[in-house]
Order: sequence, then C-alpha cells, then structure tokens
Amino acid sequence: MNQTADRDPDRLARLALATLVEPGNRELGQLVRAIGPVSALGRAMAVAQGRSADGPISDLLSGTIVARCAAANVPVSGKGAVTLAERAMERANRLGVRIVIPEDAEWPTRVEDLVRISRSGGSAIDRDTDPPICLWARGVGAVADVLERSVALVGARAATDYGVHVAADLAHDLAVREWTVVSGGAFGVDAAAHRGALNGGGMTVAVLASGIDRPYPVANASLFERIAEEGLLLSEWPPDSAPHRIRFLTRNRVIAAGTLGPVVVEAAARSGARQTLGRARQLDRQAMAVPGAIVSTMSIGCHLELREPGTRLVTTADEVIEEVGRIGELAPTPRGVVRPHDVLDPLGAQLLDAVLPRRSRTAEEIAAAAGVGGTEARRGLPMLVAAGFVVASERGYRLAPPRTRGDTPGAAGRPPG
Amino acid sequence: MNQTADRDPDRLARLALATLVEPGNRELGQLVRAIGPVSALGRAMAVAQGRSADGPISDLLSGTIVARCAAANVPVSGKGAVTLAERAMERANRLGVRIVIPEDAEWPTRVEDLVRISRSGGSAIDRDTDPPICLWARGVGAVADVLERSVALVGARAATDYGVHVAADLAHDLAVREWTVVSGGAFGVDAAAHRGALNGGGMTVAVLASGIDRPYPVANASLFERIAEEGLLLSEWPPDSAPHRIRFLTRNRVIAAGTLGPVVVEAAARSGARQTLGRARQLDRQAMAVPGAIVSTMSIGCHLELREPGTRLVTTADEVIEEVGRIGELAPTPRGVVRPHDVLDPLGAQLLDAVLPRRSRTAEEIAAAAGVGGTEARRGLPMLVAAGFVVASERGYRLAPPRTRGDTPGAAGRPPG
Repeated sequence: MNQTADRDPDRLARLALATLVEPGNRELGQLVRAIGPVSALGRAMAVAQGRSADGPISDLLSGTIVARCAAANVPVSGKGAVTLAERAMERANRLGVRIVIPEDAEWPTRVEDLVRISRSGGSAIDRDTDPPICLWARGVGAVADVLERSVALVGARAATDYGVHVAADLAHDLAVREWTVVSGGAFGVDAAAHRGALNGGGMTVAVLASGIDRPYPVANASLFERIAEEGLLLSEWPPDSAPHRIRFLTRNRVIAAGTLGPVVVEAAARSGARQTLGRARQLDRQAMAVPGAIVSTMSIGCHLELREPGTRLVTTADEVIEEVGRIGELAPTPRGVVRPHDVLDPLGAQLLDAVLPRRSRTAEEIAAAAGVGGTEARRGLPMLVAAGFVVASERGYRLAPPRTRGDTPGAAGRPPG
Repeated sequence: MNQTADRDPDRLARLALATLVEPGNRELGQLVRAIGPVSALGRAMAVAQGRSADGPISDLLSGTIVARCAAANVPVSGKGAVTLAERAMERANRLGVRIVIPEDAEWPTRVEDLVRISRSGGSAIDRDTDPPICLWARGVGAVADVLERSVALVGARAATDYGVHVAADLAHDLAVREWTVVSGGAFGVDAAAHRGALNGGGMTVAVLASGIDRPYPVANASLFERIAEEGLLLSEWPPDSAPHRIRFLTRNRVIAAGTLGPVVVEAAARSGARQTLGRARQLDRQAMAVPGAIVSTMSIGCHLELREPGTRLVTTADEVIEEVGRIGELAPTPRGVVRPHDVLDPLGAQLLDAVLPRRSRTAEEIAAAAGVGGTEARRGLPMLVAAGFVVASERGYRLAPPRTRGDTPGAAGRPPG
C-alpha cells in the first residue's frame, strides 16, 4: 500500500464506513451508490452527530455509528471518522493486508450482483445482503483474477470421512484444472476443500466471517497461514472482529456471489451451506450438490438441495466444470465395457441369445427359440461365426468359448444387470 | 378359467400369436389393432403358409411363424394355430395360471401407452416396444387393480449391502402406505424390493422375462412362490420360455409402462435399470433415482440418471409418493431443532450474538460489537432476558447457562454449520 493509496479519500471513507457499520447494510449501500463513499460518510456522521435530522439515515444506522464511535473512543464527527480510517489503514499496513475497494482494478465486480437481491425488511440475514463496502485481502494474486474461474466448495463442519474425502478430491481435481476453490475456512468440508486445492498446486480462497487477523477456527491456524502464502484470505470485517454467529450467514453471500457457483459436499438438513446455495440460486449462479448415502444425516441437506429445481448433481470436477465452465468444457460420460450386443445388429443379437454355450443347436432350433425365421437364422448365424461369437460344427451352432469371444463366459445367455 | 373363457376366439387367437411371435413386435401389434386378433392370426398364417403373398406381413414375421410351428410340430395353418392355442390354454389351466388379454376387465390398460413409443427400425430393443399381446398371471388380485397405485423399484443384481437395505426399506414403507411394488425378480435390488413389500404386508408384482413356470433366477424360487401366494407373477412369454438376455430388456418396457414410475436404487453405469428409466421418461412416467456415495460404482448409474432432466431424486417412500401420488400426498420436510435465532427478530438475533457466555458486557459494549445503536440495545436486551436467553446483573449482560436457555451451551457464540 503506497502513500498515495493511503490518502485516497474514497478508500478512507469506505474504511471508516466498514468500521462503523456491519457488512451487507442496504441503507448504507444505497447511500454510497447514490452519492459516493465520501459524501455518504459525511451525511451519516452529520445525522449521527445530531447536526442534521432530515437526512436519509435511519435511527438504527445512526445509533450504530454512535455506539461504534463510543467503543473506539473517537468523537462522532468527520474528524472521528478520519481517525478510525487512519487507524484501520495503519493496522492493515502493519499486518501486511491489502484493502480492496470497488474503485480498484482488482475488485471482484461479480459481488456487485448482490444489489439484485438486497432488500429492506425481512430477517437480519435477508436484509444484510448488500455488496461489501470494502475487502481486506491477504495472500497472492489480484482478487478479481483469482475469482475469475472459481467455484465454492461448502458443507458441514461435522463432515464424515466420506465428505472430507470427496471435498479434498474435488478440490484437488479442480485445482489441477486451474480452477480456484473458494470456501469458508471452517472444520470439515471447508478445510478439506482448501487443503485439496493446495495439494493440487492450485489457488484457494478462504472468505472469513471475522477480522482477517482472527481467522476462525483457531485450530486451523496453520491452514490459514498456508492459504495466506499460496492462496488468498478475504474478509469484509475490520481486523480484530470476532466470528459472531450471524456473520457467517452474512459472509455466505460473498461466497455465493464471488464464484460461478457453490457445490455443497455434505450438509445436515439445517446448514449454512444450504443458505449459500439458496443465495446462489437467487443470483442465477449454478447451485450444485454431491449426493451421498441416504442413510447418512450429513447428506440430507445435499439431497434436499438436489430436490430443488435447478440444483445440479455433480460427482466429479469435470462435471462441476461442465456446469459452470465455458461451452466446450464437457465432462466425459462413464461407460461400461463393449459387449457383443453392442456391435451386433438386432437379428444377430436375437440369434446370439438363442445359441447355447455347451450344446449345439440347429439353425432351425435357434430360429424357433429366438423368434425369427429359418431363412434369417441361416443367413445370420454364419456372420456370428465369422465375428467369433459362435462356433459351427456338423451338429449345429454353439457359443464360442470365452477366450476367443472376448467376453465373459455365458454372458449371452444371461440377463443384463 | 371357465369353459366359456377357454373358447373365447379373441383369447385363443392372442394365445396363438403370443406363442408364435416374440413380444413387443410392432408389425403384429399394428395388425391386431387394425383388424383384431382373430383376423390378424388368419392373415399371418395365410402368408406364412404361402397361400397369400400380398398381405401386410413381412418375411421376418412369417419366417418366425414357420420356424415356431416347425419346432412345436404343428402345421403352418389355422388348424395348427388353434392346436397351439389349445395346448397353451390347457397348460395354463394345469399350472393354475390366468391368461389376461386386453378384452378382459383386469387388463392393465396403462401398458397400451407403449403404442406411443413403438416404432419400426432401430435396434431390436427399440423396435420391440409394442404393448403385450397377452399376459400370463399367477397370484392374487386383478392385474389392473394391483397396478393402479404402483411404482417400480429396479436396480443392480450386484447390489451392495446399501442398495439391498435401501430397496427393502423403500419397498416396505411403500407397501405400508398401500402402494404396490413392481420389480423383475432378479438378485439384488429386485429381490430386496419384493421381500421388503411382502414384509410390509403389501402387494408386490414380479414381471418375468421368461415363462411364468420358469421364473428366473432359480435360486429365488422360494421368493417367487411367496409372491405367487401373496402377490402377483406376470409374464408375456408362454410357459417354458427361457430367460434369454434380450428378453429382459423387452420385459423392462412393461415395468416402465405398467407403473406410475420406476425408482432405480443402485445401478452401474451400464444397466438394464437405466433402460427402464429411459422408457419411463419416453412414456411420461416419473423417473426417480436414489443417490448413493459417489465412490460406489453401484451408484454411478443412479447419478447419471439424476443428471438427466426430469429424473427426481428420492430418499424416502413419502418422497416417491409425492412424485407419483395424487395432489395432497406430500412428503414431510426434515427439519432440525428450533434454536433461539429462529424465534428472535433481527435485532434480537444480532444482540444475542454479541452477548458473551462467561463475561458480562454493558449494553453499550454489546451495541458496538453487534453493530446496532445503544438505544436499540437497551430496548432489546431486556427482552432477551425475559425470553431466558440472557442473564442481567449489575455488571451487564451475559448468556444464560444452557439449562435455562433450552439450547446447546455457547451456541449463540458459534457459527452455524
């Protein structure tokens, strides 16, 4: 961060606003979009200070600002706001953290889609869906570039071995294909996804619900350090902010909006990952889910999501990429082995079914058993002999032994699975 | 079967045709629909006999008839056909098997939908999709009544313990809700489905790909006996017909058409069960699939089906019934426990997040941490106290201990899953 950037008024105003108001606040977002961050800060401070009563600022918002100024020991004034912003800037510099704002080239513009689902009223969670005011970033790569080709892998903290295994595998394979894996840094699926991506030599982003210097949970500290070195830590909360419960749900909207789509790997019926998928659907992102055993409570949430219209079932990185990638990035379809019936015409297949493995039948017997005419049988059987499926003798026709038929013994006489 | 029914010319003609021609033959089906079974038999025999060359009968069809007459040692003539039909009738009477034809009240008219997907050309399997000419039935209940409220449970013979368990459970629960479970009598998923339905005290139907006196596989003999006593065995092949491989695929269309929809429980990438689902989709039946672990090859087929548009993911009998049942038969949605955040308004939820479990905070500290105004905090905190979530003291507010809060300890301070 150079001195010019430090003195940028937009950056300082956004820093102050992000320190004074919880992320996602629609009232503030609208004001900033209407008159810009500097004027928005001035207006908000004037109302909070009591100098202006007829501004478009609610009591709730101005009350918040007063409370935060008091807690930070700064006056409720423009000067107080500048003090807060300068402190935040110094702190970011000290921590080696970048502050990224919409005016920057590396701003991930995709998160601005949140404006479409931002609304007044509803629960705190529904209300707090406005785009971030600014982001704290620590790690490598420009935020917009890193998120350009990204999917989110999200899911249960109490993941099973299956969920951890699947998350790590998917993340690894996405990373190998140069897709960024975004998650929330939590235990279970999140941590497995970050680790899988790092082990695949790829990019991973942890979007935090606390200050960037307080990644949660503490037990994942070494993982967060590795992400900061090889990937990217992101937060819209100022340093030192605690991981309040409600912040995780507010944070989820950034995971949904910042990526091309979320994949839920394992989730209970009630789960934050499901909320992320819901947000993604509202934003026209591709919601995806990995299925699991229906007897596992940790897959119930995935299956509920897969019963929602529009959620796609995915089992491999290729299938994920097929859903979110550009046209042409198609997943290969798994296929079984090729069997005689695949290469035979209908008549040949019917005849082959009527040929026995150990006893010869005449062409007439085979015709009657297969339900075709004698002429067709006499015409078709030599072709089956030529193809190596059937052996002819003076007593008639029987199946060729397995080693010359290139198929499992007796397969022609057995029903398919 | 009484003497009048035995002498019914339609029944005898259909019996002869079903003995002379493999099921699903479109050419024969069209002829029967155009001029009725008696005239169709006469026309077919005249062409096969060489008496008429300009009839609408192909060489393939007349060749089949000649071959089958020869194998049965009857002349290629109307008289030969009558002999065949009478033999088949006697045999059915001896076996205690009913012959059911479209002219009967118990005919499952739903299978006539197959006319819509019947076509010329294509592979033998695509071609052989005409409705059955007649059905052999052994067991209890009128066929149409038994199939009225029915779903098919189909899947891998090489099912895992998971597949067997899920098939038996689903079938049991469907049976308890008075739905008929239809399957194919095979090892694995099929057998588990039949057993589950019987153990639920309900109806089950095994649609066979061989003669009704030769149910396949022989190792399931005691299961087939139990089905014949408490459920229904069905076949469109004459007694003594062998279970040729291709017949299983021909048979699958009856499972798809005779029910309101198939559920595939476990299936490899390549599987007869997937063909049944494909047929169901063509017939506008509801295709359904049970998910499983993506690391299980026996769930690959299910997941491929679930990636097809229109296939619904199901995990319980209630969900199956919701897909195929009448409006109003809705599955209950699994829900988690109710937590404080569910019952609190947005302000209350935000405040609760900022209250600590073991250290008291003042209303002002809580307001600043939560990002709300001091006035709102002073208004909202007493309500949290009244609700039992928070305890007030002269030092401020802290979380109520678990036993009075009716929630897990510290839940408010922890992020959701």
